[in-house]
Amino acid sequence: MSVKLRWPSYHGRVSRTPPHPEGWQIDLQQVLEAVVDPVRRSIVAQLDAAGHDIKCGDFDLPVSKSTATHHFTVLREAGLIRQYYVGTARLNTLRRADLDRALPGLLDALMGRAAAPSA
Amino acid sequence: MSVKLRWPSYHGRVSRTPPHPEGWQIDLQQVLEAVVDPVRRSIVAQLDAAGHDIKCGDFDLPVSKSTATHHFTVLREAGLIRQYYVGTARLNTLRRADLDRALPGLLDALMGRAAAPSA
Repeated sequence: MSVKLRWPSYHGRVSRTPPHPEGWQIDLQQVLEAVVDPVRRSIVAQLDAAGHDIKCGDFDLPVSKSTATHHFTVLREAGLIRQYYVGTARLNTLRRADLDRALPGLLDALMGRAAAPSA
Repeated sequence: MSVKLRWPSYHGRVSRTPPHPEGWQIDLQQVLEAVVDPVRRSIVAQLDAAGHDIKCGDFDLPVSKSTATHHFTVLREAGLIRQYYVGTARLNTLRRADLDRALPGLLDALMGRAAAPSA
């Protein structure tokens, strides 16, 4: 189901930036498999609420560092977050625009931000 | 995580109508666990597209009858569908209004019906 991602390379050297799907590769099945986990939904919610990028170590999560790393990887591979390095810190961006384009309304609905129906 | 549902009874006799959560008991975690399965999402999509109730036997599903029955139960217990009998046939209703109230925008987003962002 999931798209095979290649680690980016530059002149034959492997990049430190991990692989990400393109926006058009974001797929409902893979996104649902990512967000069905409450810890992963919490990562998305914390990025959404902060409105800025957050270091992996700065999230408030009830799991070990290695488990958290796994959750970040699942979110990155599903296209929910973008990860990049600044020095030795790995930072995380919510891919809001890409998600809104690929799966309109889903992020808002998951974050409880969609308007309730009138009537 | 899931709410304990009691089989309805009437004057001590167990009803043929299986138990359903109330609208206010519909919970994001349980709904996501239901819709993460593609067969269950297909059941919801078929009800959504039909716009009318459908008998369990009349869905187009790539699984055995007993597996389908399990999927219907998961959807019913999560509050996505309502099940009732007419004679010996078990019919299924999409609980659209209850879902839209409990989790605004989610059903539309899952069905690919939410408006794409402008810009």
